[in-house]
Amino acid sequence: MIEILRTTKQFEIFRKIYDEKSVGFVPTMGNLHKGHLSLAKESLRNNDLTIVSIFVNPKQFCPGEDYEKYPRTLGEDTAQLKELFRSENLMNSEKRLAIFAPESILEIYSPGFSTVISLPMLSNKLCGLNRPGHFDGVSTVVFSLFSLVRPHKAYFGQKDYQQYLIIKKMIEDLRLNIQIVPMPIKRDNDDLAYSSRNQYLSKEERIDALELPRTLSEIKNIIKTNIWPVAKVKMDALVNEKLANKKWEYLKVLDLVNLEEPQEGTYTVGIFGSLKLGNTRLIDNKLVEIKYA
Amino acid sequence: MIEILRTTKQFEIFRKIYDEKSVGFVPTMGNLHKGHLSLAKESLRNNDLTIVSIFVNPKQFCPGEDYEKYPRTLGEDTAQLKELFRSENLMNSEKRLAIFAPESILEIYSPGFSTVISLPMLSNKLCGLNRPGHFDGVSTVVFSLFSLVRPHKAYFGQKDYQQYLIIKKMIEDLRLNIQIVPMPIKRDNDDLAYSSRNQYLSKEERIDALELPRTLSEIKNIIKTNIWPVAKVKMDALVNEKLANKKWEYLKVLDLVNLEEPQEGTYTVGIFGSLKLGNTRLIDNKLVEIKYA
Repeated sequence: MIEILRTTKQFEIFRKIYDEKSVGFVPTMGNLHKGHLSLAKESLRNNDLTIVSIFVNPKQFCPGEDYEKYPRTLGEDTAQLKELFRSENLMNSEKRLAIFAPESILEIYSPGFSTVISLPMLSNKLCGLNRPGHFDGVSTVVFSLFSLVRPHKAYFGQKDYQQYLIIKKMIEDLRLNIQIVPMPIKRDNDDLAYSSRNQYLSKEERIDALELPRTLSEIKNIIKTNIWPVAKVKMDALVNEKLANKKWEYLKVLDLVNLEEPQEGTYTVGIFGSLKLGNTRLIDNKLVEIKYA
Repeated sequence: MIEILRTTKQFEIFRKIYDEKSVGFVPTMGNLHKGHLSLAKESLRNNDLTIVSIFVNPKQFCPGEDYEKYPRTLGEDTAQLKELFRSENLMNSEKRLAIFAPESILEIYSPGFSTVISLPMLSNKLCGLNRPGHFDGVSTVVFSLFSLVRPHKAYFGQKDYQQYLIIKKMIEDLRLNIQIVPMPIKRDNDDLAYSSRNQYLSKEERIDALELPRTLSEIKNIIKTNIWPVAKVKMDALVNEKLANKKWEYLKVLDLVNLEEPQEGTYTVGIFGSLKLGNTRLIDNKLVEIKYA
């Protein structure tokens, strides 16, 4: 029913059994929350075999980041996926769900591993500015996992929109035969996007964190209710006011296709924000169409 | 018999016909010489279908290099490959030879292409020092071509030993299911390695160029006829003497496996040299086993 595979060798043997089946892939670093589960659910509905990988990838953590203390909760993750499988009434179906949780870094990176896949044009902005090398680590590990998993579809949450765009472009550039499926952000009742890092927040920080989705909504509302040149002036004023507070790492409105400043011809923008609460950096985004006169 | 494919679309349709056949691949920038032909010959012997790509890859030229004036000789290249095919008595065989010569850069790099594959540890030395970005351009284009060509075997000449090693490591790291076949350097009667750049040499430069293989042979001889600590002292003296002449861009003896300085446990070294004659940079190498006491 649910297989857990801890080595690459095991995984490859398992994967071969499904060479003729459709395969959906949900790459994660574990510590699953409702966001991850919504990806797994979508994959289960659309593929014969769903593979959820759980691998805390050292290459995407920068010096000083939380690699060591990143929560590793394989037991709970497995339980949540089993419960999802059951609640989707798949126990007696032909559908399969497998967890690929490499037991060691060496299962993914052989000794002397030295290849880096990078997309500098999309990486050197937003999160990439404060996290040098982060997205190189992401694209490199995702490629490695793609090589092993050989999925037909891969599911990425839009909370990490920049990451989604980088992987989408990598797939296109490298002609990987994979369909990337972006999935909407899952939010808690108070509108805070689910994130494995939310658990680091103190009670107070959790309240302060709500400024992130609230501000994005305010800007979204400005763009929705004003034609563009007016919207831009109003929005810039709000952004500048917000950025005076050093908690904000960035707050930007960018063309959704290339993460450049909106230009004539830009129809949809993303409002991207990153807020630092104590040692915890949260990110979020909301999408909105520009109204031209 | 010999197909010439000028677009990616054409190529992909053609390639599908051979999905069940063994495919050998010889990536080149054209202007074929005996070195290239020896790779194609080896591929023809060992595969049902051999694909020679001819693509002058802008990404591997650095600013100020000879991208514009790099010789483009598709007619002659085709004639040479046809002659090879004929002389190997393959005209009435099942073997096939195809030339993939993209008619535009856009056939390989779609607009907005932004992925870079790099192997900094192997690239930041020897030729990489004077040619920033060169090897990133090589690994990126070779990956792209691999994606299209889907070869079982890929043939690389050992004149570009560093390039061979980078591609070998990329294949390993990224789990590409391709066997890389290194092929020995082809040399002219005077021991100069064949290179498309030899034609740039004046008559005098061509004579001066012989210092390259001659010096490598001298060092090879020192290493062959002395036990290692002694060989190293003698060899270092000769290297320092040579490097006093600014024509030498580098002259180094390195472990063949990782291009690091030889250490205890290094059995085979490469003697790598790069000599600049006017505006033309030539490279060459010779391999030799270290003798320990």
